Amino acid sequence: MRDVTIVGIGQTEVGEHWERSLRDIAVDAVLAALGDAGLEHADALYVGNMLGGALSGQQHLGALVADYAGLRGIEAATIEAACGSGGAAVRQGYLAVASGLLDSVIVCGVEKMTEETEAETAAALTMAGDAEYETIHGPSFVSLNALLMRRYMYEFGCEREDFAGFAINAHRNAVNNPNAMYRRPITAEIFGRAPMLSDPISLMDSSPNADGAAALVLVATERAHDLGHDPVRIAASAAGSDSVAIHDRRDPLFLAAAHRSAAEAYRQAGVEPKDIDLFELHDAFTILAAMSLEACGFAKKGEGVRLAKDGEIGLDGRIPISTMGGLKARGNPAGATGVYQIVEVVQQLRGQAGKNQLPDCRRGMAQNIGGTGATAITHILEAGS
Amino acid sequence: MRDVTIVGIGQTEVGEHWERSLRDIAVDAVLAALGDAGLEHADALYVGNMLGGALSGQQHLGALVADYAGLRGIEAATIEAACGSGGAAVRQGYLAVASGLLDSVIVCGVEKMTEETEAETAAALTMAGDAEYETIHGPSFVSLNALLMRRYMYEFGCEREDFAGFAINAHRNAVNNPNAMYRRPITAEIFGRAPMLSDPISLMDSSPNADGAAALVLVATERAHDLGHDPVRIAASAAGSDSVAIHDRRDPLFLAAAHRSAAEAYRQAGVEPKDIDLFELHDAFTILAAMSLEACGFAKKGEGVRLAKDGEIGLDGRIPISTMGGLKARGNPAGATGVYQIVEVVQQLRGQAGKNQLPDCRRGMAQNIGGTGATAITHILEAGS
Repeated sequence: MRDVTIVGIGQTEVGEHWERSLRDIAVDAVLAALGDAGLEHADALYVGNMLGGALSGQQHLGALVADYAGLRGIEAATIEAACGSGGAAVRQGYLAVASGLLDSVIVCGVEKMTEETEAETAAALTMAGDAEYETIHGPSFVSLNALLMRRYMYEFGCEREDFAGFAINAHRNAVNNPNAMYRRPITAEIFGRAPMLSDPISLMDSSPNADGAAALVLVATERAHDLGHDPVRIAASAAGSDSVAIHDRRDPLFLAAAHRSAAEAYRQAGVEPKDIDLFELHDAFTILAAMSLEACGFAKKGEGVRLAKDGEIGLDGRIPISTMGGLKARGNPAGATGVYQIVEVVQQLRGQAGKNQLPDCRRGMAQNIGGTGATAITHILEAGS
Repeated sequence: MRDVTIVGIGQTEVGEHWERSLRDIAVDAVLAALGDAGLEHADALYVGNMLGGALSGQQHLGALVADYAGLRGIEAATIEAACGSGGAAVRQGYLAVASGLLDSVIVCGVEKMTEETEAETAAALTMAGDAEYETIHGPSFVSLNALLMRRYMYEFGCEREDFAGFAINAHRNAVNNPNAMYRRPITAEIFGRAPMLSDPISLMDSSPNADGAAALVLVATERAHDLGHDPVRIAASAAGSDSVAIHDRRDPLFLAAAHRSAAEAYRQAGVEPKDIDLFELHDAFTILAAMSLEACGFAKKGEGVRLAKDGEIGLDGRIPISTMGGLKARGNPAGATGVYQIVEVVQQLRGQAGKNQLPDCRRGMAQNIGGTGATAITHILEAGS
């Protein structure tokens, strides 16, 4: 295998793009990433997407986006792993370049979640769960996560308010991200009186459905030196899985796939959690943020929630998370989210994170989760090439 | 990169499996392939699927199938490129093993198309076309292909009957394939009086929607020698794209993506069309068989249909196609079809094709097409490792 470097990033604002279609925003991100890389072409395009079929009546996005981005003819495919689709697409792009068969791959995560009613969107999202044995009984994707949060509170003796720090941190960081969906800070009081979606998950525990597209250009590291941009090396790429249904897991409060893929990523990069300067984790719900921190070795079991309480996740904390707003406040365009996470780590490593720039930032981790934890893809990025 | 070898194949019968769900038939194929390889595990599972969301309300098939196949924990994702999903998944499996990062990958193509009404299934299939500029105007996937066939007949001066040879050949070969959906021969007379679906495409020009799953086990070639089975080497793997909408193509009668991926595959394998002993092409419609033969260099433009008339595509012909029944008679479970094609090439190269066994078969090609030609993935396989 050969090393792989990110030489271009692009993203659209996350929000409600009623005047732009699925392909339109994907093309915007792809062209932005190519422009950033100073390239006009690539060998392949992999699109991360979950809901194109269900909400836009459009599958076959690989060829479609390639064509509309002016790349007609190149290899193209869609990669899907529910809300982990973006990270899974980056993983396939990484493998393709590492193989030596492709010199450059564009990865684009795209989702359009405001095309249909909220009820239809919620119904579509349940396809991330087990249709025959889990979601057939009626739970929405929010209520599946609410089961986890309730159990976590029971097992580890904590309250709803203990999770507030995750949402407050995310919203604080989103203020300075021009692409974030909700660029306003919230307080503990706002968190406390947020309307309940599925007890104990409130509006402020939950990331918003959104439209958005983000893209990366990956090239073989030996080629990155010829390109003008601050290169960022992919030091590790790993994926793991778990049962799709929560009830099939030995311990529903342990994200086994997240643990497995993080452990493998640490091994590949030769690092430990203490060596990670920032962690873009999958805070689709505050409970997932807590459990991700535990699964990846940043907190002991049942203590992930404490990091939010103690402020260790802030920009000046021990392990900064959601540095550009996270899923919670940047917004969570399902199949695009995993690519946004990596774009944001690249921004930090390049020193392009604006007012949210971390000092001495050399190594960042991004972890994208599908479903309630059945898929997890972890990447570790390092400045330089 | 390193070489990649197929050491295991598995398939379910193609047909209507009302008593088995999407995951059930996928698991059947995966376990059959692992058993055939003499393996109990692999590093990853890539699932080729198009319609799980639309027809079974189930996405996130990678993790789901991995779990139910007893492989919980491994890397898993779904690859989608409309009806080219199976071939696209094989392509990703090939890249992953070639990269050196994964030693073994299971690729499973699966589709369940008899879950909903035929109208719903037909509507779901239109998502392979361009939703905003093509299928919004009402054409079904059959009628899009009917436009191609009508134009072909006009341009090259041929009649409906000229296409009969493709269907007759496919049905003749399916008789001896225990996994084929329609195991009975047809005559020119039956072809001639078949009910019209979308003029000029009749029932006998069109492949049937079906349920089915097929799987492969890919390993690094250096490891294949340790395994007991007749190895089959992937000598070439290539993918190309074209506009999704037919009306966007400079020449709608030329399958540019098929041509591009075949040309690249010939280059990789160092061969020409005359060196190919069999060609499992994408005969979703007889017109696609004719155009595929032309795009891949087996016939000049407008002359692909002549190969069927002259009998050159039979088991004893110049270029045998659809040797186990093809999409037409084995059946066309959309996202699974590309894996079935490769399983069947492996059967021929191993000498396991039963009464349809080709003599002296050393090198076979499989080409899977998505949409009306917007995606094409071509693999060339060779006996030995």
